[in-house]
Amino acid sequence: MSNSRPIGVFDSGIGGLTVVRALTHYLPHENIVYFGDTARVPYGPKSPQVVREYSAQDADILLQHNVKAIVVACNTVSAVALDVVQKRAKIPVIGVIFPGAEAAVKATRKKRVGIIGTIGTVNSNAYTNAIRQFDAEVQVFSQACPLFVPLAEEGWMDHKATELIAKEYLFPLTLEKIDTLVLGCTHYPLLKDVIGKVLHNNVTLIDSGEATAKAVATMLEAEGLQNTSKLKSNLQFYVSDIPQKFTEVGERFLGQKLGKVHRVAALAM
Amino acid sequence: MSNSRPIGVFDSGIGGLTVVRALTHYLPHENIVYFGDTARVPYGPKSPQVVREYSAQDADILLQHNVKAIVVACNTVSAVALDVVQKRAKIPVIGVIFPGAEAAVKATRKKRVGIIGTIGTVNSNAYTNAIRQFDAEVQVFSQACPLFVPLAEEGWMDHKATELIAKEYLFPLTLEKIDTLVLGCTHYPLLKDVIGKVLHNNVTLIDSGEATAKAVATMLEAEGLQNTSKLKSNLQFYVSDIPQKFTEVGERFLGQKLGKVHRVAALAM
Repeated sequence: MSNSRPIGVFDSGIGGLTVVRALTHYLPHENIVYFGDTARVPYGPKSPQVVREYSAQDADILLQHNVKAIVVACNTVSAVALDVVQKRAKIPVIGVIFPGAEAAVKATRKKRVGIIGTIGTVNSNAYTNAIRQFDAEVQVFSQACPLFVPLAEEGWMDHKATELIAKEYLFPLTLEKIDTLVLGCTHYPLLKDVIGKVLHNNVTLIDSGEATAKAVATMLEAEGLQNTSKLKSNLQFYVSDIPQKFTEVGERFLGQKLGKVHRVAALAM
Repeated sequence: MSNSRPIGVFDSGIGGLTVVRALTHYLPHENIVYFGDTARVPYGPKSPQVVREYSAQDADILLQHNVKAIVVACNTVSAVALDVVQKRAKIPVIGVIFPGAEAAVKATRKKRVGIIGTIGTVNSNAYTNAIRQFDAEVQVFSQACPLFVPLAEEGWMDHKATELIAKEYLFPLTLEKIDTLVLGCTHYPLLKDVIGKVLHNNVTLIDSGEATAKAVATMLEAEGLQNTSKLKSNLQFYVSDIPQKFTEVGERFLGQKLGKVHRVAALAM
């Protein structure tokens, strides 16, 4: 039994394309519908209440496309509103927190894990709680890095200022002698090189998007939801602002051309 | 005739409080109602279409408070949506672009003016067009500085990274030998020191908020809308996200305590 219905993926904006990139790598024949809420981005600094309201609407947009599963690519949403999406959808819903937490627990040797993310993600303690569920002995140290998103969006991957900012944010984590660091925001994989450099390349970096793509593959198999077609998959992109900037910057995040990007009709706030 | 109706001020978020600060300085007896759209901030990187939709809704919120005039504190809105607000309101509407442009034209000695602002403000050419209306001979050089807003919100006013970023953004303007620079975003006055330092303190910095407050004072007098009461004025603050962060960070922008901040009911997108 093959299931050609698309996987729905949503994010506050463009960052979730790094998760789509990983999905297309592990699941090259799965169709994907992506929604990026570019008219209200970012979610990271906003309150859990507002993020929960927005997430319900984002899920509804994907559900209109008859998706067979929803991947919450946004770490902030996964941290504070996964239950909202799960309650709304009668299909499997996977966020990025649990797969990222599990990968970190597997990777750490000294049971000392760092988490970096938005203010919303870090304040939620979602990664810490998830890691403790996998292994209660792991010690978790968190740091919000609000400037990393604008730096990644500006494309300042190897700028001296980015390195200085990374040093300032990551210094408290190096004092805690972490051996594993979760990149707890979809934008951060773009800053992997500078983060690695600041940590002297002796800390294992966990890309939650990668871990999530593997978890989605496992889930599809377990639920019998795979698309066994060998046809080239179809990727569809929707955004809430006009598509121009998303189309221009998106290629850097997706690792390939996006094709046509559509604007969705107005959302209620 | 005294008019105690409040002046309405709106902004995409918290930055407009620097304009309120200037208003309370020049017009200490005027009541003010402020709305910050913190649930959808920032406007600067978003498309003119979306900013125009949001601006109409923001104006409507102020109009419900029976304001006697509207000050558009947001440079991006003033640049791309002032006509939207003017059409909606049957009362005087003042944006920050014209007052800032006029102040720059008065200040420049060599007729070489720099403009810094968000991508939306810079792409609109609104400052350039306004300056040319005051003096067609002035040459204008613009630079978008997208990282300045998050740096100001993080409170990194005198960080080495902020200086490096300012150097990178402002270098092209120094090559053009500007003698006057318009701080074309309400967040930028917070970075005045580092901007001045990078420009070796030989460029006149124009704070559009200051210039706008003076323009509002002139307009109120001309229109007979002044509040001649000598009572302490009443400042009311409304936001679209929950008020917590706005209340915490706002004091730095306003220069005084905010008191109670209210959340408005849901907006249509």
